[in-house]
Amino acid sequence: MLTGMHVAFLGGDARQLEVIEKFSEMDASITLIGFDNLEPKYGGVKYAELKEDILKTIDVLILHAVVTNNTGKIDSIFSSKELLLTKNHLKSLPKHAKIYTGYSKPYFKNLCQENKIELIELFERDDVAIYNSIPTAEGAIMMAIENTDITIHGSNCIVLGLGRTGITLARTLKGVGAHVKIGVRKHEHFARASEMQLNPFYLNNLTNEVTDIDLLFNTIPTMIVTAQVIAHIPHRAVIIDLASKPGGTDFRFAEKRGIKAMIAPGLPGIVAPKTAGQIIAKSLIQLISEDSSEWGND
Amino acid sequence: MLTGMHVAFLGGDARQLEVIEKFSEMDASITLIGFDNLEPKYGGVKYAELKEDILKTIDVLILHAVVTNNTGKIDSIFSSKELLLTKNHLKSLPKHAKIYTGYSKPYFKNLCQENKIELIELFERDDVAIYNSIPTAEGAIMMAIENTDITIHGSNCIVLGLGRTGITLARTLKGVGAHVKIGVRKHEHFARASEMQLNPFYLNNLTNEVTDIDLLFNTIPTMIVTAQVIAHIPHRAVIIDLASKPGGTDFRFAEKRGIKAMIAPGLPGIVAPKTAGQIIAKSLIQLISEDSSEWGND
Amino acid sequence: MLTGMHVAFLGGDARQLEVIEKFSEMDASITLIGFDNLEPKYGGVKYAELKEDILKTIDVLILHAVVTNNTGKIDSIFSSKELLLTKNHLKSLPKHAKIYTGYSKPYFKNLCQENKIELIELFERDDVAIYNSIPTAEGAIMMAIENTDITIHGSNCIVLGLGRTGITLARTLKGVGAHVKIGVRKHEHFARASEMQLNPFYLNNLTNEVTDIDLLFNTIPTMIVTAQVIAHIPHRAVIIDLASKPGGTDFRFAEKRGIKAMIAPGLPGIVAPKTAGQIIAKSLIQLISEDSSEWGND
Amino acid sequence: MLTGMHVAFLGGDARQLEVIEKFSEMDASITLIGFDNLEPKYGGVKYAELKEDILKTIDVLILHAVVTNNTGKIDSIFSSKELLLTKNHLKSLPKHAKIYTGYSKPYFKNLCQENKIELIELFERDDVAIYNSIPTAEGAIMMAIENTDITIHGSNCIVLGLGRTGITLARTLKGVGAHVKIGVRKHEHFARASEMQLNPFYLNNLTNEVTDIDLLFNTIPTMIVTAQVIAHIPHRAVIIDLASKPGGTDFRFAEKRGIKAMIAPGLPGIVAPKTAGQIIAKSLIQLISEDSSEWGND
Ligand SMILES: NC(=O)c1ccc[n+]([C@@H]2O[C@H](COP(=O)([O-])OP(=O)(O)OC[C@H]3O[C@@H](n4cnc5c(N)ncnc54)[C@H](OP(=O)(O)O)[C@@H]3O)[C@@H](O)[C@H]2O)c1
Ligand SMILES: NC(=O)c1ccc[n+]([C@@H]2O[C@H](COP(=O)([O-])OP(=O)(O)OC[C@H]3O[C@@H](n4cnc5c(N)ncnc54)[C@H](OP(=O)(O)O)[C@@H]3O)[C@@H](O)[C@H]2O)c1
Ligand SMILES: NC(=O)c1ccc[n+]([C@@H]2O[C@H](COP(=O)([O-])OP(=O)(O)OC[C@H]3O[C@@H](n4cnc5c(N)ncnc54)[C@H](OP(=O)(O)O)[C@@H]3O)[C@@H](O)[C@H]2O)c1
Ligand SMILES: NC(=O)c1ccc[n+]([C@@H]2O[C@H](COP(=O)([O-])OP(=O)(O)OC[C@H]3O[C@@H](n4cnc5c(N)ncnc54)[C@H](OP(=O)(O)O)[C@@H]3O)[C@@H](O)[C@H]2O)c1
Repeated sequence: MLTGMHVAFLGGDARQLEVIEKFSEMDASITLIGFDNLEPKYGGVKYAELKEDILKTIDVLILHAVVTNNTGKIDSIFSSKELLLTKNHLKSLPKHAKIYTGYSKPYFKNLCQENKIELIELFERDDVAIYNSIPTAEGAIMMAIENTDITIHGSNCIVLGLGRTGITLARTLKGVGAHVKIGVRKHEHFARASEMQLNPFYLNNLTNEVTDIDLLFNTIPTMIVTAQVIAHIPHRAVIIDLASKPGGTDFRFAEKRGIKAMIAPGLPGIVAPKTAGQIIAKSLIQLISEDSSEWGND
Repeated sequence: MLTGMHVAFLGGDARQLEVIEKFSEMDASITLIGFDNLEPKYGGVKYAELKEDILKTIDVLILHAVVTNNTGKIDSIFSSKELLLTKNHLKSLPKHAKIYTGYSKPYFKNLCQENKIELIELFERDDVAIYNSIPTAEGAIMMAIENTDITIHGSNCIVLGLGRTGITLARTLKGVGAHVKIGVRKHEHFARASEMQLNPFYLNNLTNEVTDIDLLFNTIPTMIVTAQVIAHIPHRAVIIDLASKPGGTDFRFAEKRGIKAMIAPGLPGIVAPKTAGQIIAKSLIQLISEDSSEWGND
Repeated sequence: MLTGMHVAFLGGDARQLEVIEKFSEMDASITLIGFDNLEPKYGGVKYAELKEDILKTIDVLILHAVVTNNTGKIDSIFSSKELLLTKNHLKSLPKHAKIYTGYSKPYFKNLCQENKIELIELFERDDVAIYNSIPTAEGAIMMAIENTDITIHGSNCIVLGLGRTGITLARTLKGVGAHVKIGVRKHEHFARASEMQLNPFYLNNLTNEVTDIDLLFNTIPTMIVTAQVIAHIPHRAVIIDLASKPGGTDFRFAEKRGIKAMIAPGLPGIVAPKTAGQIIAKSLIQLISEDSSEWGND
Repeated sequence: MLTGMHVAFLGGDARQLEVIEKFSEMDASITLIGFDNLEPKYGGVKYAELKEDILKTIDVLILHAVVTNNTGKIDSIFSSKELLLTKNHLKSLPKHAKIYTGYSKPYFKNLCQENKIELIELFERDDVAIYNSIPTAEGAIMMAIENTDITIHGSNCIVLGLGRTGITLARTLKGVGAHVKIGVRKHEHFARASEMQLNPFYLNNLTNEVTDIDLLFNTIPTMIVTAQVIAHIPHRAVIIDLASKPGGTDFRFAEKRGIKAMIAPGLPGIVAPKTAGQIIAKSLIQLISEDSSEWGND
C-alpha cells in the first residue's frame, strides 16, 4: 500500500485514468493537475492548478506518458489550459520527490538534471518495453489488415530487428499465419530467430530479401529502409515503420516510387489505452514500492 | 486452359477483378456486363449490356459474389445502371451453361431451378468456406482491436461454434495470445478443441462461461446469445457476431444492457478483397476445369 | 453415479487400472476377471474366474482394449491363465448386457453378433480417436527422436493423411519446429491444412514430394508408401508407419533399399498408459451414463 | 574456403564426424589424431599419433566437444589408446595456433593459459548455446515421454530459468500442448514469458507453484530444487534436471521421498549427434573465417 504518499498527476490521456485508479486502490493521496475537463470527476482526489505550493507537498509527480515538447509543456487531453512545467516548479519540489514519465525529449531531461530532480523514464525499462511491445504489435497488425487488400495469413512479411518490439511483432505475425522473415545483425539473434522458426537473415542482405514481400515492418531506430532497399521492394508492398520518429525509412523515396509507407508512433496509447495504462501503473507501483523505504527521510 | 470457353461476368465488386484476371490468364473469352465505369478498362475483353443475344453464346455466367435481392437484381460497384436478371435472360442461356455465384437468396435459386439452369453457390463448398474463414477471422481480429481499449493478447475470448469459421477464428485468436474458450455441442468437437488447447465447454453451460469475458465471437447461425446469456456478460465485453444475418445475438437486449454488440457480415470482401477474389477464382477454375469435358457437347 | 450397476472387467493392461478406478469412484459394483496377479489388490472389488454364473449377473462387460485374437482369447497382463471368451459365456449374459472394448478383430465381432450381444468398439468413435491421437503423436515424436541423429526442429517431415491422427501429429511436429508437409486427397483437407500452415500437397504428387525428406509419418491405412515412392526417398530418411497393421508401407522394399522403416502400433498404451486409460474411462462412463435409463429394464 | 589451413582433430565422438566433413568441404588440410578405429576411413585426410612434431605444423586444433578430465586426457570413441595432451604438446604448437573445444574443465583451461595458447570454448557463445538448446529441449521431451505414463499434452509442467535453454524448452513443451509455467527472477523475464504465454512466476514463490505439477524441468545451475521445494511436489511428478553437473536438485532428498528425479547432461550429443556436430562445425567455421586474415602472419 502507498498510504500517506502524496502523488500528483500532471496531464495525461486515456492511459492516465488507469494509473490514477490503481494509485487510488493503493490508498495514495492523489492530486490531479490539468484534469479540469475530466467527466465524471473521481471522488476522494484533489483537483489543483499547476502552482508551486501544491508541488511542495508531493512525493511523486507523474507526467503525461510522453514529454515531447522543448519548452516544458505537458500535454493533457483533459484540460484546455496550457500546462507549462518550469524551473521554478521543479525547484519547489521536495528533495526526495521523483518525476515519472514514459519517455521524455532531452530538453526536459536536462531541465530535471540541472535542478537535481530524478526523472525516471518508464519506457526505457526492459520489462515495460516488452509489455508495450504487445499493443504495439497488435496496432501494427491492425494497420496491416486495414492497409492491404490481402490477408496477413499467407503473406510474405519482413520484420527488421529482433529487439523487444521485433520479437513480439514477428511472433504475432506468425501466430496469424504470415510467412515471416526477420532481419538481424547479431549471431545470437540469428540463432534465436531460427529456434523460433522466424527465418532470419543478416541485414547486409536486406536488398535481396525484400524482392517478394507484401509487408515490411521496421523496428530499428536508424535509417535502414533506404532508397536502395525501397528500389527492390515490389509496388504492392506496404511499409509500416514502428521505430520512433523519424523512423528508419526513406519516406520521400517511397512516395516517389508509389510505395505505401507509413510511420506509426504511439500505438499502445492508441489501440489499447487501458492495457497501456495498466502497464504503466503496474510498473510505477512496483518501482515506487521498491523505493518506498526512502520516503519521508528528508 | 479454358481456351474457347465464353465466360461472362455480371456485376461484382473488387473481388471480381481478381477472378477476371485469372480467367484471362486461362485464355477464356471474356465478356463483362455491368462494368461500364471500370477504369482502366482491360484490353482483350468485351464490354456488353445485359441483353439476351449476348447470353445465347456463353458457357459460364459468373455473378456478383452475393445475390441478395428478391427481384433478380445483381449488384455492381462498376456500373451505375441497374442489372436485372430476368426469366427471359435465363431462358436465352444455352442448355449447358452454368451460373456461378458465392451465395444466393432463395428467390434467385428458385428462378434458376424453374428455368432448369444449374446454379452453383461457391460459398457452400467446404474448401471455399475454409479459405474464406481466414479473411473472416482477420476481419474479426481487426474489429476486436478497433472496438476495445485492451489488447487481444491476454484477454478472455469465447468463440461459439467449432465449424469452418470457428476453428480458424479460435486458432487465430490464440495465435495473437488471447485466452480462448470455445463453445461446442458435439463430443468430437470437444475432443478436437482439447487437442488444439482451445479450452472447450458444452454450449448448455454457456451462461456460466461468459461471466468474465472480454470478447465473445459467434459463428453459430441460430439464436444462441440470448437475453439470458447477455444478462451474465460483463459490461465491458464486446460481442462480435459473424453468423450470417440476422446473426445469433439478441441485439435489442444487448443494447438495452449497454453492451456493445455488432454484426459483421461479408468480412472477406471488406478486409481482403484481393485474397477473397483469389479464393473465388481458384475454386471456379478448379470446378470448371473438372467439368470441362462436358463443354460444347450440346 | 453408477450405483447398483454390475461391471465386470475381463483382461487388460496398465490402461485398465485407470478405468477400474474411475468406475470405482462412480460407485459401480466391480468384478475383476483375469487379475489374479494384480498387486496390490483393490479393496471393495470382487475377483472371479471366467465362469458362466458370474456373467449372468453383470450389466457391463469391459474387455482388454484390443481383441486381436481369432479364438475369443482375451489378453491380460495381470494373469498367467488363459482367458477364453466362448459362445457359452456370451449366451449366459443378460439380454441387456453390453460388451465394450477398444477395437476388435472381425472374429469376435461376429461371435457377438451371432449371439445378439451388443459390442461397442470405443476406438471407432470420433472423440476417442481424437483423444487417442494425442498419445499416438507423442509416441511418434519419441520414436522420431530416438531413431534419427538430427533434431525434429528444422527437419523436413511429411505426414500422410489429415484424419484424426494426421491432424494432431502434423500440429505436434510443427509445435516442435519441424518443416511439415501434409499429403491429402480432398480439397477441403487441402484448405484446412493451408489454414493451419501445414503445407498441403495432393497425394498423387507424393513421389515428387518425398525427395528431400528426413522423416515420413503415415496414417493412411492402405498401401500408399509404395516401392515407387520409396525409390524417391533419400537414404537418410526414416519412415514411421502409424496405420493399423499391416501399415501402408512396402517394408520389404524399404529394407532392400536400406531405408529405416518401422510400424508402430498401439502407441497410446505404450507411451501413456495412464492417459490412454483415462480416455477409455471417460468415454465409457459417458456412454454408459447416457444409456443408463435402460438399465434394469429387462 | 580454408585452403592452406592445417586443422588437426584430437579425439571426439559422433559429432566430430560432421565437423570433419565440413572442414573437408572447406578444403582445409586435415589430420586426425585418435581416430585409429574409425571405419570407413576418410580419403584425403592424414591419420597421426599424438606427437609433438605433427603439432608444430598445425594452425587449428579441435578437441573432443568436452574436456572433462583433470589430467589433459582427451576422450575419443574412435580410439582405444589414451590421448593425453601435455604441457610439451602445447609448447610445440605454433604461436598463432588456437585450440577449440565445446567446454573445458578449469584444469585444461589453466594449462592453456600458462602456455599462452588461446583456448576457445564454443558452448559459452550465445549463438551456440541457443542452437544447442534445441536438441537439449528435444532430449528433455523424449525423457519426459519415456519416464511418465501420461501425455505431455495437457500435463502441468514447470520450467525453471528463462535463459538460453529455458526459453527453448518452455516453447517446445507448449508446442506439444503442455500447460507450462516458468520460474524467473527478473522483471524483464517475467514480461517476456507473459508475452509468450508461458505463465511466469517469481522463483521466491517456487514452493507454492509446484504443488500440482506433473513435470519439473530445471535449467538453473545452482541448488534451486531444494528439499523444501521437493516436499511440496506431488509423488507422481518427475524432475528432469538439465543444469550442468551437479544440477540444481537435491537428488538425495528426492530419492528419499520416492520422487523420480534425474540429471540429464550432454543431451545434444546423445539425441542428435549429427545436428550437434553441425552446430559446432558452423560456429567453428564462422569463427575461424572471421579470424583467417591473421593466418600465416607469424
Ligand atoms: N510505434 C510504436 O508505437 C512504438 C512502440 C514501442 C517502441 N517503439 C519504437 O520501436 C523502436 C524499437 O524499440 P525496441 O524496444 O524494440 O528497441 P530495442 O529492443 O532496442 O530493439 C531495437 C532493435 O534494433 C536493432 N538495431 C539498432 N540499431 C541498429 C543498427 N544500426 N543496425 C541494425 N540493427 C540495429 C537492434 O539490434 P542489436 O541488438 O543488434 O543492436 C534491435 O534488434 C524504438 O525506436 C522505439 O521507440 C515504437
Ligand atoms: N461474417 C462473415 O464475414 C462470414 C464469413 C464466413 C461465414 N460466415 C457465416 O458464419 C456462419 C458459420 O459459417 P461456417 O462456414 O463456419 O459454418 P459451419 O462450418 O456450418 O459451422 C457452424 C457451427 O455452428 C454450429 N451450430 C449450428 N447450429 C447449431 C445449434 N443449433 N446449436 C449449436 N451449434 C450449432 C455447428 O456445430 P455442429 O457441427 O454441432 O452443428 C458449427 O460448429 C454462417 O452463418 C456463415 O454464413 C460469415
Ligand atoms: N499406431 C498407433 O498407435 C495408432 C493410434 C491410433 C490410430 N492408429 C491407426 O492410424 C490410422 C489412422 O487413424 P485415424 O483415426 O486418423 O483415421 P481417419 O481419421 O480415418 O484418417 C485416415 C486418413 O487416411 C486417409 N485415407 C484413407 N484411405 C485413403 C486412400 N485410399 N487414399 C488416400 N487417403 C486415404 C483419409 O483421408 P480421406 O478423408 O480423404 O478418406 C484420412 O485422412 C488407422 O489405421 C488407425 O488404426 C494407429
Ligand atoms: N543437459 C544438457 O544437455 C544441457 C545442454 C545445454 C545446457 N545445459 C546446461 O543448462 C544450464 C543452463 O544453460 P543456459 O545456456 O540456458 O544458461 P543461461 O542462458 O545462462 O540460463 C541460465 C538461467 O538460470 C538463471 N539463473 C542463474 N543463476 C540463478 C540463481 N541463482 N537464481 C535464479 N536463477 C538463476 C538465469 O537467470 P538470470 O538471467 O536471472 O540470471 C537464467 O535464466 C547450464 O548449466 C548448462 O550447462 C545442459
